[in-house]
Amino acid sequence: MTELLQQRRTIRKYSDQDISNVLLDEILQCGTRASTTGNMQLYSIIVTRDKDMKEKMAPLHFNQPMVRSAPVTLTFCADFNRFNMWCRQRNAEPGYDNFLSFMTAAIDALLVAQTVCVAAESKGLGICYLGTVIYTADRIIELLDLPAGVVPVATVTLGWPAEEPEQVDRLSLKAVVHDERYHNYSENDIDTFYAEKEARADSAQFIKENNKETLAQVFTDVRYKKGDNETFSAILLEVLRKQGFLK
Amino acid sequence: MTELLQQRRTIRKYSDQDISNVLLDEILQCGTRASTTGNMQLYSIIVTRDKDMKEKMAPLHFNQPMVRSAPVTLTFCADFNRFNMWCRQRNAEPGYDNFLSFMTAAIDALLVAQTVCVAAESKGLGICYLGTVIYTADRIIELLDLPAGVVPVATVTLGWPAEEPEQVDRLSLKAVVHDERYHNYSENDIDTFYAEKEARADSAQFIKENNKETLAQVFTDVRYKKGDNETFSAILLEVLRKQGFLK
Repeated sequence: MTELLQQRRTIRKYSDQDISNVLLDEILQCGTRASTTGNMQLYSIIVTRDKDMKEKMAPLHFNQPMVRSAPVTLTFCADFNRFNMWCRQRNAEPGYDNFLSFMTAAIDALLVAQTVCVAAESKGLGICYLGTVIYTADRIIELLDLPAGVVPVATVTLGWPAEEPEQVDRLSLKAVVHDERYHNYSENDIDTFYAEKEARADSAQFIKENNKETLAQVFTDVRYKKGDNETFSAILLEVLRKQGFLK
Repeated sequence: MTELLQQRRTIRKYSDQDISNVLLDEILQCGTRASTTGNMQLYSIIVTRDKDMKEKMAPLHFNQPMVRSAPVTLTFCADFNRFNMWCRQRNAEPGYDNFLSFMTAAIDALLVAQTVCVAAESKGLGICYLGTVIYTADRIIELLDLPAGVVPVATVTLGWPAEEPEQVDRLSLKAVVHDERYHNYSENDIDTFYAEKEARADSAQFIKENNKETLAQVFTDVRYKKGDNETFSAILLEVLRKQGFLK
Protein backbone atom coordinates (compact mmCIF):
# COMPACT_ATOMS: atom_id res chain seq x y z
CA MET A 1 0.00 0.00 0.00
CA THR A 2 2.80 2.46 0.78
CA GLU A 3 4.35 0.91 -2.35
CA LEU A 4 1.35 2.19 -4.33
CA LEU A 5 1.74 5.68 -2.87
CA GLN A 6 5.50 5.70 -3.44
CA GLN A 7 5.26 4.54 -7.04
CA ARG A 8 2.43 6.76 -8.16
CA ARG A 9 2.66 9.20 -11.06
CA THR A 10 0.19 11.61 -12.59
CA ILE A 11 -1.52 10.27 -15.73
CA ARG A 12 -2.54 12.67 -18.50
CA LYS A 13 -3.36 10.19 -21.29
CA TYR A 14 -6.33 7.88 -20.96
CA SER A 15 -7.66 4.93 -22.94
CA ASP A 16 -11.17 4.99 -24.44
CA GLN A 17 -12.44 2.67 -21.72
CA ASP A 18 -15.17 4.13 -19.54
CA ILE A 19 -15.36 4.05 -15.75
CA SER A 20 -18.43 2.20 -14.49
CA ASN A 21 -20.80 3.89 -12.08
CA VAL A 22 -20.24 1.03 -9.64
CA LEU A 23 -16.49 1.64 -9.60
CA LEU A 24 -16.90 5.40 -9.43
CA ASP A 25 -19.29 5.08 -6.49
CA GLU A 26 -16.86 2.80 -4.67
CA ILE A 27 -14.10 5.38 -5.09
CA LEU A 28 -16.28 8.30 -4.06
CA GLN A 29 -17.53 6.35 -1.06
CA CYS A 30 -13.92 5.99 0.11
CA GLY A 31 -13.64 9.77 -0.16
CA THR A 32 -16.58 10.28 2.17
CA ARG A 33 -14.72 8.39 4.93
CA ALA A 34 -11.99 11.06 4.99
CA SER A 35 -11.75 13.23 8.11
CA THR A 36 -14.09 16.23 8.11
CA THR A 37 -14.47 19.08 10.59
CA GLY A 38 -17.04 18.13 13.24
CA ASN A 39 -18.40 15.51 10.80
CA MET A 40 -20.13 18.37 8.96
CA GLN A 41 -18.98 17.08 5.51
CA LEU A 42 -18.66 20.55 4.06
CA TYR A 43 -18.13 19.53 0.43
CA SER A 44 -19.86 18.50 -2.74
CA ILE A 45 -18.48 16.59 -5.71
CA ILE A 46 -19.65 17.36 -9.23
CA VAL A 47 -19.23 14.50 -11.70
CA THR A 48 -18.68 15.45 -15.35
CA ARG A 49 -19.24 12.68 -17.92
CA ASP A 50 -21.33 14.49 -20.53
CA LYS A 51 -19.50 15.34 -23.75
CA ASP A 52 -21.14 18.72 -24.08
CA MET A 53 -20.23 19.65 -20.50
CA LYS A 54 -16.61 18.60 -21.16
CA GLU A 55 -16.56 20.89 -24.22
CA LYS A 56 -17.76 23.78 -22.10
CA MET A 57 -15.41 22.95 -19.25
CA ALA A 58 -12.24 22.50 -21.30
CA PRO A 59 -11.57 26.21 -22.00
CA LEU A 60 -12.07 26.97 -18.29
CA HIS A 61 -9.10 24.67 -17.71
CA PHE A 62 -7.07 26.45 -20.41
CA ASN A 63 -7.87 23.63 -22.84
CA GLN A 64 -5.72 21.09 -21.07
CA PRO A 65 -6.55 18.01 -23.19
CA MET A 66 -7.37 15.77 -20.18
CA VAL A 67 -10.77 17.43 -19.69
CA ARG A 68 -11.95 16.23 -23.11
CA SER A 69 -10.14 12.89 -23.11
CA ALA A 70 -10.85 11.63 -19.58
CA PRO A 71 -14.07 9.64 -19.16
CA VAL A 72 -14.73 11.39 -15.84
CA THR A 73 -13.82 14.75 -14.38
CA LEU A 74 -14.53 15.48 -10.71
CA THR A 75 -14.86 18.98 -9.32
CA PHE A 76 -14.52 19.09 -5.53
CA CYS A 77 -16.23 22.06 -3.91
CA ALA A 78 -16.11 23.63 -0.49
CA ASP A 79 -19.84 23.54 0.35
CA PHE A 80 -21.59 25.21 3.28
CA ASN A 81 -24.84 25.53 1.34
CA ARG A 82 -26.23 22.11 2.28
CA PHE A 83 -25.27 22.53 5.94
CA ASN A 84 -26.73 26.05 6.07
CA MET A 85 -30.02 24.81 4.57
CA TRP A 86 -30.20 22.09 7.21
CA CYS A 87 -29.55 24.62 9.97
CA ARG A 88 -32.26 26.97 8.71
CA GLN A 89 -34.78 24.11 8.49
CA ARG A 90 -33.97 23.26 12.09
CA ASN A 91 -34.44 26.65 13.70
CA ALA A 92 -30.67 27.23 13.88
CA GLU A 93 -28.97 30.35 12.52
CA PRO A 94 -25.75 29.45 10.66
CA GLY A 95 -22.76 31.77 11.15
CA TYR A 96 -20.64 30.46 8.30
CA ASP A 97 -20.47 33.42 5.92
CA ASN A 98 -16.83 34.16 6.73
CA PHE A 99 -13.28 33.33 5.65
CA LEU A 100 -12.66 30.78 8.40
CA SER A 101 -15.70 28.84 7.25
CA PHE A 102 -14.46 28.90 3.66
CA MET A 103 -11.11 27.47 4.77
CA THR A 104 -12.85 24.84 6.91
CA ALA A 105 -14.95 23.69 3.96
CA ALA A 106 -12.01 23.90 1.52
CA ILE A 107 -9.95 21.65 3.81
CA ASP A 108 -12.82 19.15 4.00
CA ALA A 109 -13.11 19.14 0.20
CA LEU A 110 -9.37 18.72 -0.37
CA LEU A 111 -9.03 15.80 2.04
CA VAL A 112 -11.90 14.09 0.22
CA ALA A 113 -10.33 14.85 -3.16
CA GLN A 114 -7.02 13.29 -2.23
CA THR A 115 -8.69 10.23 -0.69
CA VAL A 116 -10.69 9.74 -3.89
CA CYS A 117 -7.45 9.97 -5.89
CA VAL A 118 -5.69 7.35 -3.75
CA ALA A 119 -8.74 5.06 -4.01
CA ALA A 120 -8.82 5.55 -7.80
CA GLU A 121 -5.12 4.76 -8.16
CA SER A 122 -5.48 1.66 -6.02
CA LYS A 123 -7.99 0.46 -8.63
CA GLY A 124 -5.53 1.04 -11.47
CA LEU A 125 -7.00 4.34 -12.61
CA GLY A 126 -4.83 7.36 -13.39
CA ILE A 127 -5.54 10.85 -12.10
CA CYS A 128 -4.48 14.41 -12.85
CA TYR A 129 -5.19 17.51 -10.75
CA LEU A 130 -6.02 20.67 -12.70
CA GLY A 131 -4.83 23.68 -10.70
CA THR A 132 -6.71 25.91 -13.12
CA VAL A 133 -9.91 25.39 -11.11
CA ILE A 134 -8.95 28.16 -8.69
CA TYR A 135 -8.00 30.54 -11.52
CA THR A 136 -11.40 30.36 -13.21
CA ALA A 137 -13.61 29.56 -10.22
CA ASP A 138 -16.05 32.30 -11.29
CA ARG A 139 -16.74 30.64 -14.63
CA ILE A 140 -16.78 27.12 -13.19
CA ILE A 141 -19.40 28.28 -10.68
CA GLU A 142 -21.51 29.50 -13.58
CA LEU A 143 -21.07 26.32 -15.64
CA LEU A 144 -21.83 23.97 -12.75
CA ASP A 145 -24.66 26.08 -11.26
CA LEU A 146 -22.93 26.35 -7.89
CA PRO A 147 -25.09 28.33 -5.44
CA ALA A 148 -23.90 30.71 -2.70
CA GLY A 149 -21.89 28.85 -0.09
CA VAL A 150 -20.20 26.67 -2.72
CA VAL A 151 -16.71 27.26 -4.22
CA PRO A 152 -14.72 24.79 -6.36
CA VAL A 153 -11.24 24.07 -4.94
CA ALA A 154 -9.96 21.02 -6.84
CA THR A 155 -10.59 19.42 -10.21
CA VAL A 156 -9.33 15.93 -11.03
CA THR A 157 -9.49 14.02 -14.31
CA LEU A 158 -9.86 10.25 -14.02
CA GLY A 159 -9.30 7.50 -16.55
CA TRP A 160 -7.55 4.26 -17.40
CA PRO A 161 -3.87 4.99 -18.12
CA ALA A 162 -2.74 5.02 -21.75
CA GLU A 163 0.82 6.04 -20.88
CA GLU A 164 3.56 4.99 -18.48
CA PRO A 165 5.42 8.18 -17.71
CA GLU A 166 8.67 8.30 -15.73
CA GLN A 167 8.25 9.32 -12.14
CA VAL A 168 9.04 13.02 -11.81
CA ASP A 169 11.68 14.31 -9.39
CA ARG A 170 10.93 15.38 -5.85
CA LEU A 171 13.02 17.27 -3.32
CA SER A 172 14.60 15.05 -0.68
CA LEU A 173 12.64 14.52 2.51
CA LYS A 174 15.04 16.67 4.52
CA ALA A 175 14.28 19.62 2.24
CA VAL A 176 10.61 19.64 3.29
CA VAL A 177 10.60 18.20 6.84
CA HIS A 178 11.61 20.18 9.93
CA ASP A 179 12.24 18.77 13.40
CA GLU A 180 10.38 20.64 16.16
CA ARG A 181 10.81 24.10 14.63
CA TYR A 182 11.18 25.52 11.15
CA HIS A 183 14.87 25.68 10.35
CA ASN A 184 15.17 28.37 7.79
CA TYR A 185 17.32 27.58 4.78
CA SER A 186 20.84 28.82 4.23
CA GLU A 187 21.95 29.76 0.73
CA ASN A 188 23.90 26.53 0.72
CA ASP A 189 20.84 24.49 1.75
CA ILE A 190 18.91 25.87 -1.20
CA ASP A 191 21.75 25.09 -3.60
CA THR A 192 21.98 21.55 -2.24
CA PHE A 193 18.25 20.81 -2.18
CA TYR A 194 17.60 22.09 -5.71
CA ALA A 195 20.81 20.67 -7.28
CA GLU A 196 19.24 17.44 -8.51
CA LYS A 197 16.27 19.24 -10.11
CA GLU A 198 18.55 21.75 -11.79
CA ALA A 199 20.86 19.03 -13.13
CA ARG A 200 18.05 17.24 -14.99
CA ALA A 201 18.09 17.14 -18.77
CA ASP A 202 14.47 18.31 -18.93
CA SER A 203 15.32 21.35 -16.80
CA ALA A 204 18.04 22.34 -19.27
CA GLN A 205 15.51 21.90 -22.07
CA PHE A 206 12.89 24.10 -20.32
CA ILE A 207 15.48 26.84 -19.90
CA LYS A 208 16.50 26.65 -23.53
CA GLU A 209 12.97 26.44 -24.95
CA ASN A 210 11.93 29.46 -22.94
CA ASN A 211 15.09 31.37 -23.64
CA LYS A 212 15.83 31.90 -19.92
CA GLU A 213 18.98 31.88 -17.80
CA THR A 214 17.76 29.70 -14.93
CA LEU A 215 15.05 27.13 -14.23
CA ALA A 216 13.58 29.42 -11.56
CA GLN A 217 13.02 32.07 -14.24
CA VAL A 218 10.90 29.58 -16.21
CA PHE A 219 8.57 29.54 -13.20
CA THR A 220 8.57 33.26 -12.40
CA ASP A 221 8.59 34.62 -15.97
CA VAL A 222 6.67 31.98 -17.92
CA ARG A 223 4.68 29.43 -15.95
CA TYR A 224 3.49 31.24 -12.80
CA LYS A 225 3.81 34.95 -13.41
CA LYS A 226 3.23 37.68 -10.87
CA GLY A 227 0.71 39.49 -13.07
CA ASP A 228 -1.35 36.34 -13.65
CA ASN A 229 -1.24 35.45 -9.96
CA GLU A 230 -2.50 38.92 -9.08
CA THR A 231 -5.29 38.77 -11.64
CA PHE A 232 -6.41 35.33 -10.42
CA SER A 233 -6.15 36.44 -6.78
CA ALA A 234 -8.57 39.28 -7.45
CA ILE A 235 -11.00 36.93 -9.22
CA LEU A 236 -10.79 34.33 -6.45
CA LEU A 237 -11.33 36.87 -3.65
CA GLU A 238 -14.31 38.26 -5.56
CA VAL A 239 -15.65 34.70 -5.87
CA LEU A 240 -15.37 34.25 -2.09
CA ARG A 241 -17.26 37.48 -1.58
CA LYS A 242 -20.00 36.62 -4.09
CA GLN A 243 -20.40 33.12 -2.70
CA GLY A 244 -20.83 34.58 0.77
CA PHE A 245 -17.55 33.80 2.51
CA LEU A 246 -16.19 37.30 3.16
CA LYS A 247 -19.07 38.88 5.07
CA MET B 1 -6.96 -1.02 -0.17
CA THR B 2 -10.36 0.59 -0.75
CA GLU B 3 -11.34 -1.66 2.19
CA LEU B 4 -8.80 0.22 4.34
CA LEU B 5 -10.21 3.59 3.24
CA GLN B 6 -13.81 2.46 3.72
CA GLN B 7 -13.20 1.05 7.20
CA ARG B 8 -11.11 3.88 8.59
CA ARG B 9 -11.98 5.81 11.72
CA THR B 10 -10.29 8.66 13.54
CA ILE B 11 -8.21 7.56 16.54
CA ARG B 12 -7.90 9.85 19.56
CA LYS B 13 -6.35 7.44 22.10
CA TYR B 14 -2.85 6.15 21.57
CA SER B 15 -0.69 3.51 23.27
CA ASP B 16 2.67 4.42 24.80
CA GLN B 17 4.53 2.86 21.89
CA ASP B 18 6.68 5.27 19.92
CA ILE B 19 6.82 5.65 16.13
CA SER B 20 10.29 4.90 14.75
CA ASN B 21 12.03 7.43 12.55
CA VAL B 22 12.27 4.81 9.82
CA LEU B 23 8.51 4.32 9.80
CA LEU B 24 7.81 8.03 10.03
CA ASP B 25 10.14 8.72 7.10
CA GLU B 26 8.45 6.05 5.01
CA ILE B 27 5.07 7.65 5.67
CA LEU B 28 6.30 11.17 4.98
CA GLN B 29 8.01 9.99 1.80
CA CYS B 30 4.64 8.73 0.56
CA GLY B 31 3.29 12.21 1.21
CA THR B 32 5.92 13.79 -1.02
CA ARG B 33 4.65 11.74 -3.98
CA ALA B 34 1.26 13.48 -3.81
CA SER B 35 0.36 15.80 -6.68
CA THR B 36 1.72 19.34 -6.35
CA THR B 37 1.23 22.42 -8.52
CA GLY B 38 3.91 22.52 -11.21
CA ASN B 39 6.02 20.18 -9.04
CA MET B 40 6.87 23.21 -6.87
CA GLN B 41 6.20 21.30 -3.60
CA LEU B 42 4.90 24.36 -1.80
CA TYR B 43 4.75 22.85 1.68
CA SER B 44 6.76 22.04 4.76
CA ILE B 45 6.03 19.52 7.49
CA ILE B 46 6.98 20.24 11.10
CA VAL B 47 7.45 17.13 13.26
CA THR B 48 6.70 17.50 16.97
CA ARG B 49 8.08 14.77 19.25
CA ASP B 50 9.60 16.83 22.06
CA LYS B 51 7.64 16.77 25.32
CA ASP B 52 8.23 20.43 26.01
CA MET B 53 7.03 21.42 22.55
CA LYS B 54 3.90 19.31 23.04
CA GLU B 55 3.23 21.15 26.31
CA LYS B 56 3.52 24.47 24.52
CA MET B 57 1.45 23.30 21.57
CA ALA B 58 -1.42 21.73 23.52
CA PRO B 59 -3.13 24.99 24.57
CA LEU B 60 -2.93 26.26 20.96
CA HIS B 61 -5.11 23.27 20.12
CA PHE B 62 -7.53 24.09 22.94
CA ASN B 63 -5.90 21.37 25.10
CA GLN B 64 -7.25 18.52 23.04
CA PRO B 65 -5.52 15.61 24.83
CA MET B 66 -4.14 14.04 21.64
CA VAL B 67 -1.38 16.64 21.38
CA ARG B 68 0.14 15.49 24.67
CA SER B 69 -0.62 11.78 24.30
CA ALA B 70 0.38 11.17 20.66
CA PRO B 71 4.03 10.24 20.09
CA VAL B 72 4.11 12.45 16.98
CA THR B 73 2.23 15.53 15.87
CA LEU B 74 2.64 16.80 12.30
CA THR B 75 1.93 20.38 11.28
CA PHE B 76 1.50 20.78 7.53
CA CYS B 77 2.25 24.26 6.24
CA ALA B 78 1.64 26.07 3.00
CA ASP B 79 5.21 27.16 2.22
CA PHE B 80 6.35 29.56 -0.51
CA ASN B 81 9.41 30.60 1.51
CA ARG B 82 11.73 27.86 0.24
CA PHE B 83 10.65 28.35 -3.37
CA ASN B 84 11.01 32.13 -3.12
CA MET B 85 14.54 31.75 -1.71
CA TRP B 86 15.46 29.49 -4.60
CA CYS B 87 14.05 32.00 -7.11
CA ARG B 88 15.99 34.88 -5.56
CA GLN B 89 19.23 32.88 -5.59
CA ARG B 90 18.66 32.20 -9.29
CA ASN B 91 18.10 35.72 -10.50
CA ALA B 92 14.33 35.21 -10.71
CA GLU B 93 11.80 37.55 -9.07
CA PRO B 94 9.01 35.57 -7.36
CA GLY B 95 5.46 36.96 -7.65
CA TYR B 96 3.86 34.81 -4.97
CA ASP B 97 2.85 37.32 -2.31
CA ASN B 98 -0.84 37.05 -3.10
CA PHE B 99 -3.97 35.13 -2.16
CA LEU B 100 -3.86 32.80 -5.17
CA SER B 101 -0.37 31.71 -4.17
CA PHE B 102 -1.53 31.05 -0.62
CA MET B 103 -4.34 28.82 -1.91
CA THR B 104 -1.95 27.05 -4.29
CA ALA B 105 0.44 26.27 -1.44
CA ALA B 106 -2.38 25.37 0.97
CA ILE B 107 -3.74 22.87 -1.57
CA ASP B 108 -0.27 21.33 -1.97
CA ALA B 109 0.06 21.01 1.81
CA LEU B 110 -3.39 19.47 2.28
CA LEU B 111 -2.90 16.84 -0.43
CA VAL B 112 0.37 15.86 1.24
CA ALA B 113 -1.30 15.77 4.67
CA GLN B 114 -4.03 13.42 3.53
CA THR B 115 -1.57 11.16 1.70
CA VAL B 116 0.54 10.94 4.87
CA CYS B 117 -2.61 10.02 6.83
CA VAL B 118 -3.56 7.25 4.40
CA ALA B 119 0.01 5.92 4.48
CA ALA B 120 0.01 6.00 8.29
CA GLU B 121 -3.30 4.17 8.50
CA SER B 122 -2.09 1.53 6.07
CA LYS B 123 0.71 0.84 8.58
CA GLY B 124 -1.78 0.40 11.42
CA LEU B 125 -1.31 3.85 12.92
CA GLY B 126 -4.24 6.00 13.97
CA ILE B 127 -4.60 9.66 13.07
CA CYS B 128 -6.63 12.66 14.16
CA TYR B 129 -6.88 16.03 12.40
CA LEU B 130 -6.97 19.08 14.68
CA GLY B 131 -9.02 21.78 12.98
CA THR B 132 -7.84 24.21 15.64
CA VAL B 133 -4.65 24.86 13.64
CA ILE B 134 -6.41 27.46 11.50
CA TYR B 135 -7.95 29.16 14.55
CA THR B 136 -4.63 29.79 16.25
CA ALA B 137 -2.32 29.99 13.24
CA ASP B 138 -0.77 33.19 14.62
CA ARG B 139 0.43 31.47 17.79
CA ILE B 140 1.47 28.28 15.99
CA ILE B 141 3.58 30.40 13.65
CA GLU B 142 5.29 31.87 16.70
CA LEU B 143 5.82 28.51 18.42
CA LEU B 144 7.19 26.79 15.31
CA ASP B 145 9.27 29.77 14.09
CA LEU B 146 7.48 29.89 10.74
CA PRO B 147 8.92 32.65 8.55
CA ALA B 148 7.06 34.86 6.05
CA GLY B 149 5.64 32.75 3.23
CA VAL B 150 4.70 29.92 5.59
CA VAL B 151 1.21 29.32 7.09
CA PRO B 152 0.06 26.18 8.94
CA VAL B 153 -3.08 24.63 7.40
CA ALA B 154 -3.39 21.15 8.94
CA THR B 155 -2.28 19.46 12.15
CA VAL B 156 -2.45 15.71 12.59
CA THR B 157 -1.70 13.60 15.66
CA LEU B 158 -0.26 10.15 14.98
CA GLY B 159 0.04 7.09 17.21
CA TRP B 160 -0.68 3.42 17.68
CA PRO B 161 -4.39 2.98 18.41
CA ALA B 162 -5.45 2.30 22.00
CA GLU B 163 -9.16 2.34 21.20
CA GLU B 164 -11.50 0.77 18.65
CA PRO B 165 -14.23 3.36 18.18
CA GLU B 166 -17.39 2.74 16.19
CA GLN B 167 -17.35 4.22 12.72
CA VAL B 168 -19.17 7.53 12.76
CA ASP B 169 -22.11 8.22 10.46
CA ARG B 170 -21.76 9.85 7.06
CA LEU B 171 -24.35 11.31 4.70
CA SER B 172 -25.25 8.99 1.82
CA LEU B 173 -23.27 9.40 -1.37
CA LYS B 174 -26.23 10.95 -3.18
CA ALA B 175 -26.32 13.75 -0.60
CA VAL B 176 -22.83 14.95 -1.59
CA VAL B 177 -22.46 13.94 -5.26
CA HIS B 178 -24.05 15.85 -8.15
CA ASP B 179 -24.30 14.69 -11.76
CA GLU B 180 -23.10 17.29 -14.29
CA ARG B 181 -24.49 20.29 -12.40
CA TYR B 182 -25.21 21.18 -8.80
CA HIS B 183 -28.77 20.17 -8.05
CA ASN B 184 -29.80 22.39 -5.22
CA TYR B 185 -31.58 20.70 -2.34
CA SER B 186 -35.31 20.80 -1.71
CA GLU B 187 -36.58 21.01 1.84
CA ASN B 188 -37.52 17.36 1.48
CA ASP B 189 -34.00 16.42 0.31
CA ILE B 190 -32.51 18.00 3.41
CA ASP B 191 -34.97 16.17 5.67
CA THR B 192 -34.17 12.89 3.94
CA PHE B 193 -30.39 13.26 3.87
CA TYR B 194 -30.08 14.31 7.53
CA ALA B 195 -32.72 11.88 8.87
CA GLU B 196 -30.24 9.13 9.79
CA LYS B 197 -27.92 11.52 11.60
CA GLU B 198 -30.80 13.08 13.51
CA ALA B 199 -32.19 9.68 14.52
CA ARG B 200 -28.95 8.61 16.23
CA ALA B 201 -28.90 8.11 19.98
CA ASP B 202 -25.74 10.25 20.31
CA SER B 203 -27.48 13.11 18.50
CA ALA B 204 -30.32 13.02 21.01
CA GLN B 205 -27.72 13.04 23.77
CA PHE B 206 -25.88 16.08 22.29
CA ILE B 207 -29.15 17.98 22.12
CA LYS B 208 -30.02 17.12 25.71
CA GLU B 209 -26.53 17.80 27.14
CA ASN B 210 -26.46 21.19 25.47
CA ASN B 211 -30.03 22.01 26.32
CA LYS B 212 -30.98 22.70 22.68
CA GLU B 213 -34.02 21.98 20.53
CA THR B 214 -32.27 20.56 17.47
CA LEU B 215 -28.95 18.97 16.55
CA ALA B 216 -28.25 21.84 14.14
CA GLN B 217 -28.42 24.26 17.10
CA VAL B 218 -25.66 22.29 18.81
CA PHE B 219 -23.46 23.24 15.84
CA THR B 220 -24.57 26.86 15.44
CA ASP B 221 -24.93 27.78 19.14
CA VAL B 222 -22.26 25.63 20.83
CA ARG B 223 -19.66 23.97 18.63
CA TYR B 224 -19.10 26.37 15.69
CA LYS B 225 -20.50 29.74 16.70
CA LYS B 226 -20.79 32.78 14.45
CA GLY B 227 -18.86 35.00 16.86
CA ASP B 228 -15.96 32.55 17.15
CA ASN B 229 -15.86 32.05 13.39
CA GLU B 230 -15.68 35.80 12.89
CA THR B 231 -12.92 36.19 15.48
CA PHE B 232 -10.87 33.38 13.92
CA SER B 233 -11.51 34.73 10.42
CA ALA B 234 -10.02 38.07 11.40
CA ILE B 235 -6.98 36.35 12.95
CA LEU B 236 -6.45 34.12 9.93
CA LEU B 237 -6.73 36.95 7.41
CA GLU B 238 -4.25 38.95 9.50
CA VAL B 239 -1.94 35.92 9.45
CA LEU B 240 -2.13 35.80 5.66
CA ARG B 241 -1.27 39.47 5.50
CA LYS B 242 1.62 39.20 7.95
CA GLN B 243 3.03 36.12 6.23
CA GLY B 244 2.95 38.00 2.93
CA PHE B 245 0.01 36.49 1.06
CA LEU B 246 -2.32 39.49 0.75
CA LYS B 247 -0.08 42.02 -0.92
